[in-house]
Amino acid sequence: MHRHRPSLGTLLHHVHVSGPLSRAALAERMGVNRSTILALTADLVAAGLVVEQHPAGTTGAGRPSLVVRPSPGVFVLAFDVAVDRLTVARVGLGGAVLDRRSAARTRTGADLDPVVRKLAALGRSLLDTAPPGSVCAGLGASYCGMIRPGDGMVRYGPSTGWVDQAFGTELARALDTGRPVAVGNEAHLGALAEFERGAGVGVPDLIYLHGDVGVGGGILVGGQLLGGDGGYGCEVGHMLVNPADGRPCLCGSQGCLEAETGEYALLAAAGRTPGPVGAEAVRAVARDAQAGDPAAAAAVAEIGDWLGIGVANLINLFNPGVVVFGGMLRDVYTAAAPQVSARIARHAMPVSRERARLTVSALADDATLLGAADLGFAALLADPLGAFDAFQSAH
Amino acid sequence: MHRHRPSLGTLLHHVHVSGPLSRAALAERMGVNRSTILALTADLVAAGLVVEQHPAGTTGAGRPSLVVRPSPGVFVLAFDVAVDRLTVARVGLGGAVLDRRSAARTRTGADLDPVVRKLAALGRSLLDTAPPGSVCAGLGASYCGMIRPGDGMVRYGPSTGWVDQAFGTELARALDTGRPVAVGNEAHLGALAEFERGAGVGVPDLIYLHGDVGVGGGILVGGQLLGGDGGYGCEVGHMLVNPADGRPCLCGSQGCLEAETGEYALLAAAGRTPGPVGAEAVRAVARDAQAGDPAAAAAVAEIGDWLGIGVANLINLFNPGVVVFGGMLRDVYTAAAPQVSARIARHAMPVSRERARLTVSALADDATLLGAADLGFAALLADPLGAFDAFQSAH
Repeated sequence: MHRHRPSLGTLLHHVHVSGPLSRAALAERMGVNRSTILALTADLVAAGLVVEQHPAGTTGAGRPSLVVRPSPGVFVLAFDVAVDRLTVARVGLGGAVLDRRSAARTRTGADLDPVVRKLAALGRSLLDTAPPGSVCAGLGASYCGMIRPGDGMVRYGPSTGWVDQAFGTELARALDTGRPVAVGNEAHLGALAEFERGAGVGVPDLIYLHGDVGVGGGILVGGQLLGGDGGYGCEVGHMLVNPADGRPCLCGSQGCLEAETGEYALLAAAGRTPGPVGAEAVRAVARDAQAGDPAAAAAVAEIGDWLGIGVANLINLFNPGVVVFGGMLRDVYTAAAPQVSARIARHAMPVSRERARLTVSALADDATLLGAADLGFAALLADPLGAFDAFQSAH
Repeated sequence: MHRHRPSLGTLLHHVHVSGPLSRAALAERMGVNRSTILALTADLVAAGLVVEQHPAGTTGAGRPSLVVRPSPGVFVLAFDVAVDRLTVARVGLGGAVLDRRSAARTRTGADLDPVVRKLAALGRSLLDTAPPGSVCAGLGASYCGMIRPGDGMVRYGPSTGWVDQAFGTELARALDTGRPVAVGNEAHLGALAEFERGAGVGVPDLIYLHGDVGVGGGILVGGQLLGGDGGYGCEVGHMLVNPADGRPCLCGSQGCLEAETGEYALLAAAGRTPGPVGAEAVRAVARDAQAGDPAAAAAVAEIGDWLGIGVANLINLFNPGVVVFGGMLRDVYTAAAPQVSARIARHAMPVSRERARLTVSALADDATLLGAADLGFAALLADPLGAFDAFQSAH
């Protein structure tokens, strides 16, 4: 059975990102014959990872190709740590959010212990209320900071003041499931999720910009996440765009893209004070701008201008097929598209931008959460039978 | 013999980039046993691509491992088109420049025909004077502009005014060897050459900045050139760094990295007028600055400050292992290292820069030429026997 494992993972990945697929469709996508699909599917059915069904709407006549779909009983726990909120979800194989819990996070600096305690409590409650017989296949987390590959150490989170906090290790210890928690940067994970099942499917040169309190980036080059030498690439938010009189940035520099386009810049430009929930405050400004409020419109135009400079630079550097605006930047971009487009027309080379499409996240507020879920599923998809056996025997 | 071809190419690539290697060293590098090396080498010797020799300095005693080295009779024609000079060279398998011809290029705008005529004449003279029995294995060219993959069309060259000029096709036609000319962007090729045999060997996350009249970039992500959606990535020179009061750029924008750090900016800041050979004028300013000339020192400091902003942004975005300064930027960086370092310390995230090394090109003025040579060798290295047979039979 071991010789099938790469193909087992490929088949499982197809139904994970595309949902139910007929055996015929799977055979075509994988470039193998239907008897191979039959054998692979049988192994995955026996392991409880997929189920086979007659397609909806077929009658008894003929022999329609059976549809292979992810087993409804297989899920991961996905954690999403933003600056002002914590979210934990059970996400099923196939990518559906089955259940979720959220909590506010107060902006108080280095809060590793309370964050881990809260996440672990939410996670345990989701495990405890999972349907009987369902199985947790992995744990993945998204964090708004720079993450060390391997152990999920948060090396630096400018918006939260975290420096070298052992987040992944501590969360795994607090959850006490005997399994590690795979941790990634929120914008990296958002980029991967949009590529797998969002606004960038089929576009291997993709830039995802994520607005939270700060601005993060996830960049795919040829379908691979730009990690760089240590895994810390894509720090788009700290590209210096305003060296002359830039706003101070939480990173200690000034004039960074995040300082000029993040939540605080937008609210300050609009003459408003930050509220407890950044997304609501940002959306209010964008909404008011589109409704004709002059102060809000001026703020959106100013922030959109800086955002456009940043995007123009990224287009020159990466020649992307698509630029996806996620998180709060969905609202900012929607309101400020004219400013962004004008800056791109002025500063991006025509050859670099001729095929670049700009769009908003298709996964909306769940882009980073679904990216975290995919981190949790990674081991299962790499080796479906090995990973699943190991996990089931641990319980 | 066909089943060996991938390994034949691997072996030939090793001796091409590393020079003479013992059979034992090749076996270790390729992870195969010595009888495999023996068989592969025999095929390559029979094809005239490598020769085997006793290592220098060995006596008759013992049985030292034979050394495999590139055949001295195999070369490519490499073309290097800069803004103010044309260079053509015969470059041997192994990377040595065997012979070269240069000519000045006057800065007169869209000069496809005279450039192609001159390059073809220089190329033909190099072919005519090649030693009897030697064989040209390919043709590669470096151009200071954005190149369409596949046919070598120059889509855009801001410094020369070229827009959609069929450079690769026309050069191949003028040379009339029956072979295509593979064309690449100068900084892309410089990056690949520094990675293969220069300042970035073994560093898969590498940024190469090339100063000519303009400033180009070649960026490797995980050992692969960042091409982007259409092959036009890495346009570092048109990153906007000075939106407040930037110098006009030849691309039509203003405040681009190239406008603030290129030849014209440096000379203007130093109060000098551009001469016919940009490199000499730039080197004179850098030399005078280091010798204490106040105007030159101030110009270098000003340009170095903008260069540092650009490099800090690239470090945040790419988390590179090394940043290599090439072309005229070798001299600028050497003179302005304090300004560059200060900007990196101020604007690049500590985690992003903690392992980034800054250095100058090891291939000096030949980085782009050697990159063009490697383009010319690519088909041979991909399929040594197939490519070589095809070429020899064409003559």
